[in-house]
Amino acid sequence: MTKVDPAALDRLVDALPDGAVLTDPDMIAGYRQDWAADPSAGTPIAVVRATCTEDVQAVMRWASQHRVPVVPRGAGSGLSGGSSAVDGGIVLSTERMRAITVDPVARVAVTEPGLLNVEVKKAAAEHGLWYPPDPSSYEICSIGGNAATNAGGLCCVKYGVTTDYVLGMQVVLADGTAIHLGGPLLKDVAGLSLTKLFVGSEGTLGIITELTLRLIPAQLPASTVVASFPSVESAAEAVLAITGQIRPAMLEFMDHASINAVEDAIHMGLDRNARALLLAQSDTPGEAGAKEVETIVDACEKKGAKEVFATDDPAEGEAFTVARRAVFPAVQAIGNLLLEDVGVPMQQLPALITGVESIAEDCDVQICTVAHAGDGNTHPLIVFDPTDPDMTERAHTAFSRVIDLAITLGGTITGEHGVGRLKRDFLPGQLGEDVMELNRRIKTALDPLGILNPGAVID
Amino acid sequence: MTKVDPAALDRLVDALPDGAVLTDPDMIAGYRQDWAADPSAGTPIAVVRATCTEDVQAVMRWASQHRVPVVPRGAGSGLSGGSSAVDGGIVLSTERMRAITVDPVARVAVTEPGLLNVEVKKAAAEHGLWYPPDPSSYEICSIGGNAATNAGGLCCVKYGVTTDYVLGMQVVLADGTAIHLGGPLLKDVAGLSLTKLFVGSEGTLGIITELTLRLIPAQLPASTVVASFPSVESAAEAVLAITGQIRPAMLEFMDHASINAVEDAIHMGLDRNARALLLAQSDTPGEAGAKEVETIVDACEKKGAKEVFATDDPAEGEAFTVARRAVFPAVQAIGNLLLEDVGVPMQQLPALITGVESIAEDCDVQICTVAHAGDGNTHPLIVFDPTDPDMTERAHTAFSRVIDLAITLGGTITGEHGVGRLKRDFLPGQLGEDVMELNRRIKTALDPLGILNPGAVID
Repeated sequence: MTKVDPAALDRLVDALPDGAVLTDPDMIAGYRQDWAADPSAGTPIAVVRATCTEDVQAVMRWASQHRVPVVPRGAGSGLSGGSSAVDGGIVLSTERMRAITVDPVARVAVTEPGLLNVEVKKAAAEHGLWYPPDPSSYEICSIGGNAATNAGGLCCVKYGVTTDYVLGMQVVLADGTAIHLGGPLLKDVAGLSLTKLFVGSEGTLGIITELTLRLIPAQLPASTVVASFPSVESAAEAVLAITGQIRPAMLEFMDHASINAVEDAIHMGLDRNARALLLAQSDTPGEAGAKEVETIVDACEKKGAKEVFATDDPAEGEAFTVARRAVFPAVQAIGNLLLEDVGVPMQQLPALITGVESIAEDCDVQICTVAHAGDGNTHPLIVFDPTDPDMTERAHTAFSRVIDLAITLGGTITGEHGVGRLKRDFLPGQLGEDVMELNRRIKTALDPLGILNPGAVID
Repeated sequence: MTKVDPAALDRLVDALPDGAVLTDPDMIAGYRQDWAADPSAGTPIAVVRATCTEDVQAVMRWASQHRVPVVPRGAGSGLSGGSSAVDGGIVLSTERMRAITVDPVARVAVTEPGLLNVEVKKAAAEHGLWYPPDPSSYEICSIGGNAATNAGGLCCVKYGVTTDYVLGMQVVLADGTAIHLGGPLLKDVAGLSLTKLFVGSEGTLGIITELTLRLIPAQLPASTVVASFPSVESAAEAVLAITGQIRPAMLEFMDHASINAVEDAIHMGLDRNARALLLAQSDTPGEAGAKEVETIVDACEKKGAKEVFATDDPAEGEAFTVARRAVFPAVQAIGNLLLEDVGVPMQQLPALITGVESIAEDCDVQICTVAHAGDGNTHPLIVFDPTDPDMTERAHTAFSRVIDLAITLGGTITGEHGVGRLKRDFLPGQLGEDVMELNRRIKTALDPLGILNPGAVID
């Protein structure tokens, strides 16, 4: 990329509202990295805090003219370095684009990308409606970032992922053109499925400036089962026994280290001696729901659970869910983390979870594993001390080996966090050269100058 | 396209299993058109009935070499001319690719494209599982065609459309490369969302040779409400009153002409004097379900229904659903049809349905309207006598005017049938030039020679 002339930057400032462009190094510093804390993140020449689609268009027109890379950024809670700044580029933040309207008859929300996931949920709830996708970070992650990464969460085992709820969008293309795709229509097959292509494209194809989201009726009160196990294998086997019979509304896994990290942090009274814990919910009403709870309890007991606790009290269930969501920050208190997001076909879940244990032992690093077990998506969290170069190297070796294991088991290197920059070099190992080439062809067709989030997903 | 030399065709025959290539004009004739009976359908030089992915690869390699257009075809039940043969081209039929396996623990089916939708449902049901998408033609349409058109159906109002169930696929590209996308993973965000891009691409980007489909637990027994109305407006208003409160499992609309066409054909005892009929279902269990039925009944009564009938008997409910599905063939008995598939945002449903009535009057043609009313997707069926040139012209005028009306109301020219060839010229009116250009860029990136289903969707 060519270096931008200061006069050119002035023209960008002039094209945008007062205060939209930050160039102060101290202010910019906070926009260099997302939660992945990518050490290779660069330093942008400016941060633009867009207020509307037209601002985003102005940025992209300017960036096209000057061939300046633009890194879109939501709330900065990404875990793969998808928003790592690029030297000499622009960070385009959508944090100030926060309008939302809910249409209860069409059951859709039209929202700007800067709103947090939790705020979308709240706006829907005011109409008795529900926006299901629920990343653990739902209180701090933006809905635009959720769409850009096709984010998942805890409810996906029953309710699907972000793309299942995106009906339409406005998106600004590399050259500054703003287009509308889809809309408040549950069915629309006019032309290629471009809406779905932009979901999960991590800002490499365009910048989403508005989303039309499908909402569904409020979730019914859930019953919760918590079961502790003497081994990770027995817990993983219980997961398969459950998913082979019913579709729970939640089915989460925590290993020994995760349980203890959470207990240290929030004192829930979880069984500190358990080797693994499952947290399951059913939100099916009436007798059918009671039968689901029974199925979950039975499956856990048959697979050797030491203790199984069931409750119909939604508040109690929510407390356990909060504990599960607390794993990331709790483990972060132990040390620096390399965050995995590997997923496998369900049958391979026991092989993945036990394989991760072996890798931890082999590499002599601590790995805490939590998992959205019901859909085979796991988060082995590799803990390391960055001041210890040998341990840091072993941690990175473990990171690669976990990814290789997932690929060998027919799985994915990323179930819900995105490829970003941290997993980019592993992507060809999963997709193969032909599919990589297809990714590149589409990237080139939509962003011929390569200015949209360069370095993310595809090299 | 250049004319193919007979020696070249011999090489295609040699590359494929015995009997895979049909060149006999009588046999070919049956593959020229789909249910849309596109009068502009051409005559192919051969029909290939592929038996496996490798056959499809052989065809595409050969077609690339000789620049011969290839029109993919499932069961031939398409309603937009997406499978109309092209003069001098190949029709590639997937009807013989019929393998399926179901994995009840991962809750997925892996199926070849030639299996009928009903056969996929049956295979899933053997494991207590359900593949929801249910085009009215589910007993005669192929699952590959469903994926190619992103087909809908009656259950979509609650259960979504085909793309919501496609987790992965094998697809053969224009140059004969076979690639795997996605797989039996509920969450997988590695690379661009190519799986979703191929769904609904109507054979213009590649040929799907295998699908990995998400299955869900068997549907619970549904309660059914049938209500007859004194006007189409009152029925449409009742639809909004229902969707503003609950999410029914089905919410179908039939107008006076449709009711009578069905009564003529299958004698269900529907109210022949009603101006419109709504058919709604709730499959929520227990008290919550009983409350939904009450909400539906109340909404119909408040909006002026003349008669409201509710039943918990699934067999009785299914009989009404059969009546609804019978509308297309029943109306076809009256005359030739121009089939609309227009959809609008929910609030515009009354305006669309009454607008279609006005167009019928203005153009002096009969239009029977049935609708998946709960998701705003309607099928005005324009009846005409092809031997009457004046009426034929008026029918085509009405067809255009209905499409224009849907676009004016913020809707779509096709909710679930696809653009094919019959609606191709209307697509720019909906999408606009910028989105058309994006469609073309992706088409060109994936099919630079333009040999995949040329003339469908994009000119």
